[in-house]
Amino acid sequence: MSATPASHAFRAIDVIRKKRDGGELSRGEIEWLVNAYTRGDIPDYQVSAWLMAVFLRGMARAETAALTDAMLRSGEVLDLSSIAQRKVDKHSTGGVGDKTSLVLAPLVAAAGVTVPMISGRGLGHTGGTLDKLEAIPGFNVNLSVAQFRRALKKCGCCMIGQTAEIAPADRKLYALRDVTGTVESPYLICASIMSKKLAEGIDALVLDVKTGSGAFMKKESEATFLAELMVETGERMGKKVVALITDMDQPLGCMIGNALEVVEVIDVLRGGGPRDLRELCLELAGWMLHLGGVVDSVAAGKKKSEEVIASGRALDKFRQMVELQGGDPRAIDDPRKLPRARHELVVWSSKNGYVASIQSEQVGTACVILGGGRERKEDSVDPSVGIVLHKKVGDAVSAGEVLATIYYNEKPRAARARELLTKSFQIADSPPAETRPLIHKVIASYPATRGEKN
Amino acid sequence: MSATPASHAFRAIDVIRKKRDGGELSRGEIEWLVNAYTRGDIPDYQVSAWLMAVFLRGMARAETAALTDAMLRSGEVLDLSSIAQRKVDKHSTGGVGDKTSLVLAPLVAAAGVTVPMISGRGLGHTGGTLDKLEAIPGFNVNLSVAQFRRALKKCGCCMIGQTAEIAPADRKLYALRDVTGTVESPYLICASIMSKKLAEGIDALVLDVKTGSGAFMKKESEATFLAELMVETGERMGKKVVALITDMDQPLGCMIGNALEVVEVIDVLRGGGPRDLRELCLELAGWMLHLGGVVDSVAAGKKKSEEVIASGRALDKFRQMVELQGGDPRAIDDPRKLPRARHELVVWSSKNGYVASIQSEQVGTACVILGGGRERKEDSVDPSVGIVLHKKVGDAVSAGEVLATIYYNEKPRAARARELLTKSFQIADSPPAETRPLIHKVIASYPATRGEKN
Repeated sequence: MSATPASHAFRAIDVIRKKRDGGELSRGEIEWLVNAYTRGDIPDYQVSAWLMAVFLRGMARAETAALTDAMLRSGEVLDLSSIAQRKVDKHSTGGVGDKTSLVLAPLVAAAGVTVPMISGRGLGHTGGTLDKLEAIPGFNVNLSVAQFRRALKKCGCCMIGQTAEIAPADRKLYALRDVTGTVESPYLICASIMSKKLAEGIDALVLDVKTGSGAFMKKESEATFLAELMVETGERMGKKVVALITDMDQPLGCMIGNALEVVEVIDVLRGGGPRDLRELCLELAGWMLHLGGVVDSVAAGKKKSEEVIASGRALDKFRQMVELQGGDPRAIDDPRKLPRARHELVVWSSKNGYVASIQSEQVGTACVILGGGRERKEDSVDPSVGIVLHKKVGDAVSAGEVLATIYYNEKPRAARARELLTKSFQIADSPPAETRPLIHKVIASYPATRGEKN
Repeated sequence: MSATPASHAFRAIDVIRKKRDGGELSRGEIEWLVNAYTRGDIPDYQVSAWLMAVFLRGMARAETAALTDAMLRSGEVLDLSSIAQRKVDKHSTGGVGDKTSLVLAPLVAAAGVTVPMISGRGLGHTGGTLDKLEAIPGFNVNLSVAQFRRALKKCGCCMIGQTAEIAPADRKLYALRDVTGTVESPYLICASIMSKKLAEGIDALVLDVKTGSGAFMKKESEATFLAELMVETGERMGKKVVALITDMDQPLGCMIGNALEVVEVIDVLRGGGPRDLRELCLELAGWMLHLGGVVDSVAAGKKKSEEVIASGRALDKFRQMVELQGGDPRAIDDPRKLPRARHELVVWSSKNGYVASIQSEQVGTACVILGGGRERKEDSVDPSVGIVLHKKVGDAVSAGEVLATIYYNEKPRAARARELLTKSFQIADSPPAETRPLIHKVIASYPATRGEKN
């Protein structure tokens, strides 16, 4: 990957036209476009036309890798070589109730693999890791790169937000995609995710690509396409990358809302928590430990993760990380120190039967309505509000039985959330004929894991 | 065509997404987008993404008409109802050596139909009517709408440049298309042309859609598609519109360059000039007079045009128009009063044979190189330079015989132009098997002319 000389000048109009007409852009053209845009030498209106052409024409694999690489190298690439352990991260495409990052960072670090995790905030119906962490009083996600590196050395895991130094091209491009209808392109999503993650200085990456009613990719075929794109892009850039296509047709776990999700994270780190969340965390941790080289199979990684939880070391690690990042460690042992909503309201079933489905996007939107998420980027988040599901898909219910509890601070919001939540539950006369698996498939292209059973 | 209430708010992002996904936009959505953009309420970067989506997804006929209508109504629509005669204009999609507008305005006006002609400047390899007019010393194309109306009443024809009052949306959109690779969409071309032309307050319009090596639409199928789109759009807006698909595979006439083209215009108005130019002018004038209601067939219109030329009334009308617009009328009778280049250079044939083709775009570019056209919008134009072709397609040539004369002011430019011009002539051993017709086809959708022979 030799850099194109800066003196080599392309013209934006030619690059736009070439993509518009379905041509394959060269690495030099893509690098030039990304760098010139990041520097401010190409105006937004030319890049937005190019983004729409990419959206509708697509990109070859080599183009996607070149775009990822150019975005990655638009800023700082962390050098964590002074840390002897392998560095492995996990990325999720987002869902409702997905709090696995908060479990995985301390769990995997406690098992001997360093987790340098740079995350985002919630937008739309999905939550964000940073918002969840900030529900812990005092927790600071805004560390400098130097502080991040020190914390990683000391604790083995650290969870921060995007910094100005990392992939500035992605920040600028994402803001433009957001207002020009060019977010949902798998090529652009791949480059955005992979450029930020690979800038973390990691050796390997586990991708959790969600599919179902609560995911951005509703169809499994779309999720698979994106997963393959990301795995191949990572491979082209010399990293071990595995993608798990996992179910997001109902919320993950039972708690949705920032402080409530921290409570559920602590439950899992204590060895409890809802089955689906616990299972997914063990599966992802198994892969992270395997790619991190401390176990020789995913199964061994899962077993080791269970031991680390059982021994209390995973929870200790979480407590240590919280303390290092300025959070109140007492909140880990006494959930009453987490923000709590003032009022509760229940949603009950109007009939006997079985939960046939829970429309996750509606549940996520109900949480946003309560104030627990953002409709616009500039909105602030109320960490205390949320929803606890008492029934999940397949569970039997009786008329009058409570399906969910709403934790709220403002009555009108609660009424709207309740209406949506009621609609999100489908109750059928008989149990669902088949349940969706938690892990739909695993996509791993690098030789060590290709075709491996787990 | 009822206006959408201004209070009805759409969101740019929704309109972009709908077009991106291949949906058909409503008249309300299109009107809102055009008006909000013209007012400055939507940023360039959103509109450029929308333009690229239109480019790649296309538009339904109703959308194209709605876009044309919204652009037309973004500014003033001239009210020429105080002029009793019918108002008819002609528009050409542009070519090399196409000076028909300068012949047609006085010719048709002399025959009793008013021609309110608003034209453009040359860009790329094609010339522009305004640049040609400005080769006449003193000629002023920058009249106000009030001056334009007065001149039309007095003279029956007037030729000016785009004013700020007419179709401001087109000016803004065209500038954005020019830098975002979205010029060549037939839907956007149609809306741009038709919105400006129908804002002239005309009753009917004759379109000259060029096809061949010197045209923007190289393929006849593309030219036909655009012509049908414009004819149907005009019909939907209640105007009589006819499109002639005409040949631009070799330059039109023999002279290319602004002052030289004025000379050739005068030749035609005197009853001479090259056969192809004269023929095309008579054909277009025939249609304009027929649509203008002063003759009952195109054939009668052609005959009347010949009479008006033979009587000298067409040239008198040209002289009157030039004088009314501040030009020196003596230049009409004494071409030495037009700007003349200082030097000449000839291009000769290196072998015996027949002219098989003349690559028009290269001829046009040679004229631009001499300084007779613009590479960029801000370039100024040298009216005196140009090219005279002594041979056209099908003509026999001997080795050493002159093919063309270059009129130039700067030697290095002349050398480059000569090289290109030499390449543009293809000499074959035998005459071309078939010659391309001047008029490829006529597209007329309104009942009075549908299927009419001419």
